[in-house]
Amino acid sequence: MLEREDEDALRQIVGSSGVLLAPEDRLPYETAARYGGGTAAAVVRPADTAQVAAVLRHCVRRRLPFIPQSGNTGLVLGSTPDDSGGQIILSLDRLRAAPRIDVGDRTATVAAGVRLSALNAALEPHDLFLPIDVSSDPMIGGMVATNTGGARFLRYGDMRRHVLALEVVLPDDAGTVLQLSGGLRKDNAHLDLRQIFIGSCGAFGVITSATVEVHPRPRQSAVALLVPRDEEAIFELLNAFESEAGEFLTAFEGMSEAAMRHALAHVPSLHNPFSDGLPAYAILVELTSASAYRAGGPTLDAILEAVVTQLAERQSAPLTDVRFGRSERLWALRHALSEGLRAAGPVVGFDLSFRRTEVMPFRRVAIAQLGAIFPEYEVCDFGHVADGGVHFNLVHRTRATPETSRVQQLRDHVLELAVHDFGASFSGEHGIGRANQPAYDHYTPASIKTYSAAIAAVFTRLPAAAVRFGPPLPAGERG
Amino acid sequence: MLEREDEDALRQIVGSSGVLLAPEDRLPYETAARYGGGTAAAVVRPADTAQVAAVLRHCVRRRLPFIPQSGNTGLVLGSTPDDSGGQIILSLDRLRAAPRIDVGDRTATVAAGVRLSALNAALEPHDLFLPIDVSSDPMIGGMVATNTGGARFLRYGDMRRHVLALEVVLPDDAGTVLQLSGGLRKDNAHLDLRQIFIGSCGAFGVITSATVEVHPRPRQSAVALLVPRDEEAIFELLNAFESEAGEFLTAFEGMSEAAMRHALAHVPSLHNPFSDGLPAYAILVELTSASAYRAGGPTLDAILEAVVTQLAERQSAPLTDVRFGRSERLWALRHALSEGLRAAGPVVGFDLSFRRTEVMPFRRVAIAQLGAIFPEYEVCDFGHVADGGVHFNLVHRTRATPETSRVQQLRDHVLELAVHDFGASFSGEHGIGRANQPAYDHYTPASIKTYSAAIAAVFTRLPAAAVRFGPPLPAGERG
Repeated sequence: MLEREDEDALRQIVGSSGVLLAPEDRLPYETAARYGGGTAAAVVRPADTAQVAAVLRHCVRRRLPFIPQSGNTGLVLGSTPDDSGGQIILSLDRLRAAPRIDVGDRTATVAAGVRLSALNAALEPHDLFLPIDVSSDPMIGGMVATNTGGARFLRYGDMRRHVLALEVVLPDDAGTVLQLSGGLRKDNAHLDLRQIFIGSCGAFGVITSATVEVHPRPRQSAVALLVPRDEEAIFELLNAFESEAGEFLTAFEGMSEAAMRHALAHVPSLHNPFSDGLPAYAILVELTSASAYRAGGPTLDAILEAVVTQLAERQSAPLTDVRFGRSERLWALRHALSEGLRAAGPVVGFDLSFRRTEVMPFRRVAIAQLGAIFPEYEVCDFGHVADGGVHFNLVHRTRATPETSRVQQLRDHVLELAVHDFGASFSGEHGIGRANQPAYDHYTPASIKTYSAAIAAVFTRLPAAAVRFGPPLPAGERG
Repeated sequence: MLEREDEDALRQIVGSSGVLLAPEDRLPYETAARYGGGTAAAVVRPADTAQVAAVLRHCVRRRLPFIPQSGNTGLVLGSTPDDSGGQIILSLDRLRAAPRIDVGDRTATVAAGVRLSALNAALEPHDLFLPIDVSSDPMIGGMVATNTGGARFLRYGDMRRHVLALEVVLPDDAGTVLQLSGGLRKDNAHLDLRQIFIGSCGAFGVITSATVEVHPRPRQSAVALLVPRDEEAIFELLNAFESEAGEFLTAFEGMSEAAMRHALAHVPSLHNPFSDGLPAYAILVELTSASAYRAGGPTLDAILEAVVTQLAERQSAPLTDVRFGRSERLWALRHALSEGLRAAGPVVGFDLSFRRTEVMPFRRVAIAQLGAIFPEYEVCDFGHVADGGVHFNLVHRTRATPETSRVQQLRDHVLELAVHDFGASFSGEHGIGRANQPAYDHYTPASIKTYSAAIAAVFTRLPAAAVRFGPPLPAGERG
């Protein structure tokens, strides 16, 4: 609950309509995109950077814990409060001025509360786009804060690669606003402070605006589903596509039979490309080109067919089947996998990332172990094989709500296998939120924790203590 | 001069042959690649990471200032000592174990003292390369420390985009060795400390090893020199190539007549592609493809010709001339520009970086102003137009050694125009060394300096003070 004094002060800053106290008004902000949520003391919605700074100043001075939230599409409880009812949600959803697009510079300056879809709609008339491809529609602030990767990382990289300038408000008692870099592509004139705020989930400061590099839209694409002979063949396919299709290769996404089956069962609009039964594993491969000069030569469809034919003709072919299809149809299946799992039953999800050669070995060991120890769960994984990212999701075979302790055992088992035995990251691209705090505490090397906490102290002007994800400013309680 | 006690201790760590004291042994390490240099107390050459850590521990405990040096190819006195004779050069040139190449993972783990050419030679049998293109042959440690960009940045980005893991030795009294990330492409499980060491020129720690992502080598390329109609046409050409040639566009490099003239005059092996007189400005444009599937379709040469023809046929064509030629020949001219200027006379060089739309407007204003105020200098610029980088070099028209105060006036004038009036960075890709310290002190916002110094203090465990580039640990003198 907010004290009267704080309520008045915050209304003073953001206007009466910018402070939401009624449970029904708070609810959409308190509810996480997929799983869980909590109870906030209030939702505060500043309308510009100055208001964000004033809110932070007030919160820091009064030691009120707050959580920045933009699109609230995250999966690790990074933007929703806990159950205490004592945390303030700092929503950035009113920071949504129209993006300033500089076509010649190929950049866009975007407020934190602008959705990815809105940015791309604004860029479309210029044949430009921000090529970060995810199944949800996040806002730019959260994308920077979590360093969003996604399904076309292989070709375009993550948000870190696209951020040329940042505006950040620090959680200090002055509400310091930092303008980091001037939108230059090359700038090595001082320590690149931008990098500390990208991917650190608001723990060091609140992102209010970013200038991002954007790219020419593809003019042509070709997509197919490949059925690999076996686990080893997946790598043979990837290497062949990288060396034969070169810069055209834009996505190489693995999908398990279980994940596809649940999506097809629960999302009626989907088309099943495998009419004669789903394979154990399929790979969505995409080639794209932004060049105008393909018309006279082989189309990307022809190139895709040529690579596939060559692979199918190899002795001990790595490929047992292939389905060509309309790009939107095949991507629709890929993007519906999460929704399908959610509908299928209680999900225990992991956003793992490996050296890419370790993805399939991990998968084999994990499936064998889990089948023996946790038979009530079905492995329904999918992911970005070419960059080592795996959404290793487990769906309970019955709709019974599993016991918390059993879920915890399962989480511990998978993380220990992945992080300890296979050198994985427990958060490839979902960032760090409350859901990941135990993994952070357990697996992060002590030195990294110590230096991170000391750097947090630099920006918050508070004594160094453990970095707690979730509220970036647990102030007195910190550590 | 090294005290006897320190000499003995360092010999104990790196062996007798690892400590160079004789002036003739020190000289190559004391001499900067192009301009200047200084006098060292000693050159210390550790053979592995443990020795680097022991040397740093000793230096920190004894408050001995040291400068890390790898390839010593930098242009801003970042790896050579001052004239005091009191600084130790910490050379990393013995850290040159063979790169560990993981073909399936498309990564290489490389010691700091391995040259770019040696890494690429090791990668070549696998049809892979590290696509950072510079005119010199730096070592990996320095490339990470300065975040090398270069001439193919447009397509491949800088070192920051390629570093997946880092080993860093901190300048603290424990000689702490940090292993930062495990070589994963996606890892957002904690603050990405790697980023603090990339591009900060050793001020926060000494890089001893890096795991870098590498790429399939191009199988085909096409290169031409374009002569733009005028300044505005340059941008029309760039936009046309980006939208028509898409992902094939790999370089778009501007060269002034003066820069080309000096290179052709002083580098006998060069071929002049403009037999009928040099144009005022030319652009080297390169298309490359790593795809195998071009044979049946238009070659890159054909695509390049098609784009050029289309541009030449436009009303008020942005193109007045074009020369096609062998890639190596045209690149040889581009890569010889620096050498040509050095031979032509005393050079005052700037490594500026702009929003790319500001490159030509700055150039126009600068040439007009300098012609009026500093007529004894000729502007001989060249650079990476598409990413806003400009090597804005001025050559004295006579070989007379200019007065220091006059050079200082010139430097101040150009920097004020570029950084203050045009929002440029004074160090696009050369990093920060002693040569840039005055610009750093003058132009870096106070907040950036304060936070950088506080972060340096985190890693050195010393009190925060101003970050001084050059010796990363001026210890007692710091601030």
